[in-house]
Amino acid sequence: MAVYTRINSEDMAALVAEFGVGELVSAKGIAEGVSNSNWLLETRGTPDAGRFILTVYEERTDTRDLPFFLDLLDHLAAAGCPVPRTIHDAGGSASRTIDTPQGEKMLALIEFLPGVSADDPTPAQAHAVGAALAQVHLAGQGFEGFRKDGMGPDAWRGFVRDCAGRWGEIDPALEGVPALVDDAIADWPDDLPVSTIHADLFPDNVLLVGDDVSGMIDFYFACTGPMAYDIAVTHAAWSFSPDGRRFNPAIGDALLGGYGSVRMPDARERAALPALAQAACLRFLLTRAYDWLNTPADAMVTRKDPLAFLRRHAFYRQQGAALFGALD
Amino acid sequence: MAVYTRINSEDMAALVAEFGVGELVSAKGIAEGVSNSNWLLETRGTPDAGRFILTVYEERTDTRDLPFFLDLLDHLAAAGCPVPRTIHDAGGSASRTIDTPQGEKMLALIEFLPGVSADDPTPAQAHAVGAALAQVHLAGQGFEGFRKDGMGPDAWRGFVRDCAGRWGEIDPALEGVPALVDDAIADWPDDLPVSTIHADLFPDNVLLVGDDVSGMIDFYFACTGPMAYDIAVTHAAWSFSPDGRRFNPAIGDALLGGYGSVRMPDARERAALPALAQAACLRFLLTRAYDWLNTPADAMVTRKDPLAFLRRHAFYRQQGAALFGALD
Repeated sequence: MAVYTRINSEDMAALVAEFGVGELVSAKGIAEGVSNSNWLLETRGTPDAGRFILTVYEERTDTRDLPFFLDLLDHLAAAGCPVPRTIHDAGGSASRTIDTPQGEKMLALIEFLPGVSADDPTPAQAHAVGAALAQVHLAGQGFEGFRKDGMGPDAWRGFVRDCAGRWGEIDPALEGVPALVDDAIADWPDDLPVSTIHADLFPDNVLLVGDDVSGMIDFYFACTGPMAYDIAVTHAAWSFSPDGRRFNPAIGDALLGGYGSVRMPDARERAALPALAQAACLRFLLTRAYDWLNTPADAMVTRKDPLAFLRRHAFYRQQGAALFGALD
Repeated sequence: MAVYTRINSEDMAALVAEFGVGELVSAKGIAEGVSNSNWLLETRGTPDAGRFILTVYEERTDTRDLPFFLDLLDHLAAAGCPVPRTIHDAGGSASRTIDTPQGEKMLALIEFLPGVSADDPTPAQAHAVGAALAQVHLAGQGFEGFRKDGMGPDAWRGFVRDCAGRWGEIDPALEGVPALVDDAIADWPDDLPVSTIHADLFPDNVLLVGDDVSGMIDFYFACTGPMAYDIAVTHAAWSFSPDGRRFNPAIGDALLGGYGSVRMPDARERAALPALAQAACLRFLLTRAYDWLNTPADAMVTRKDPLAFLRRHAFYRQQGAALFGALD
């Protein structure tokens, strides 16, 4: 939540001019995103002028994947999904480099979309989010790009190794995680229909105006994967209190109902949802545990509690298919 | 440069509704200001809808002075100065309180103004800034509020005491500062014409669109004081390279020329400028030195070098009145 790269305002104006969207008239560094620097820009003077988000990719983003992420936004926007378009520079490229005191960095300019993320979503909002997710899945099937899920099952044992012997530093309740991961990998269904999935559609990655989804953002975990897994991720991300203690069935059902109103998962997908929801919980538990153990307690970043996803995992294991009845 | 206070988006929407500027459709935390939390908001649906800056005042701001700062903005905006208007709530108040996990905090909503701060200003921009400063001084004379300069001569010996014995931790060149402060206090002219002054008009507190001043912001050091001192502060803030090693006469002259085109300082003010410029350098030197000694070296805040103002001070002492000839 910071701006890590300093760009002189005259350099910023020159940079923006390369994108052919008019003259820069405002630039505010915004406290958004965990690992990249972002500015909200405004331009004027050409038909394409308007508001944009400029992102400078910092070291935690693997910029080899940038073309995948940026092409995906253009593909989804062209298909009518509520995602920001990318702005291409005079050479037709959606990304550029900039020299900074820390060396060369990649950057991209994307459309600004209005909307506010919901901290306490309503069922009507959850319904709209489910429908928008299904819309992405349908449009994503026509996207040619391929990206493996870097946070998928193949990565989990690596996280388990990195945390080995240290679960207790977070909470003794986490000692059982390695066995749960083994189960989830064994249960992972290999033959479900795939598309391009967001894979991280938490409430802070959805912009809402009233009950409408005005923007789905932060596609930096997007990958090629089972659509049902993305449903499970989104269900786990939206339907619980942040600490994972309280499940909100009205939100969960509205999300699934919204999804089903646009794309009905097939029987195998529906059957896989309880296992995939547990898998999704482990995916976030593992990265949170890793970050917890590798973030100094006094860092200015808020550590997210891995237990919030252990609780969700237990809930999905206990309740199973009953939670996904809205899709039947 | 951060957002210190977390406001739930539903609470933010309810808060904004109290100001009668329509429905909240966007809220971005912005990395601006050193000590307060700021958001760029957008609303829609009423004639008064638009874009606004929401500021939550954190502990470093003495909120007893807020009515002075906010009334001043309204006074200056009404007089045609390029400053943001404040937005008043349904009860007519320009500030409100909000409950946060850290206790009750004050907040205010002000108009968003376009513009970009210049890192490398042109003489035409400096001319516009000088003229805008003079406009504030003329309008400020009709402002009824009074505020003593908390960073003025009366405060300097306190900073000297706080830094006593520790100048060498920053740089041995600073050992002579206490004597310079004594001189500056002795030389401080008591009978110059006063107004309401900005007292901190660095380039990052001025928004520019092309060569025009679209906004003067961050009035949180504004006070009742000699207009010539504000000219001196602004001259010292704009006319040097950031490290204070290079004076740019074209910028200094343009700033003074712009000021003089709106309000010509009288002979006593002009004669006082060399001493006031030295005083202004010491004011920033002292607060930078204090912050340097009281900010952990590994804090995420960039420490500003006090020497940059010792160099300016030496330059003003050597060059004296010759630097202010543009006002003759």
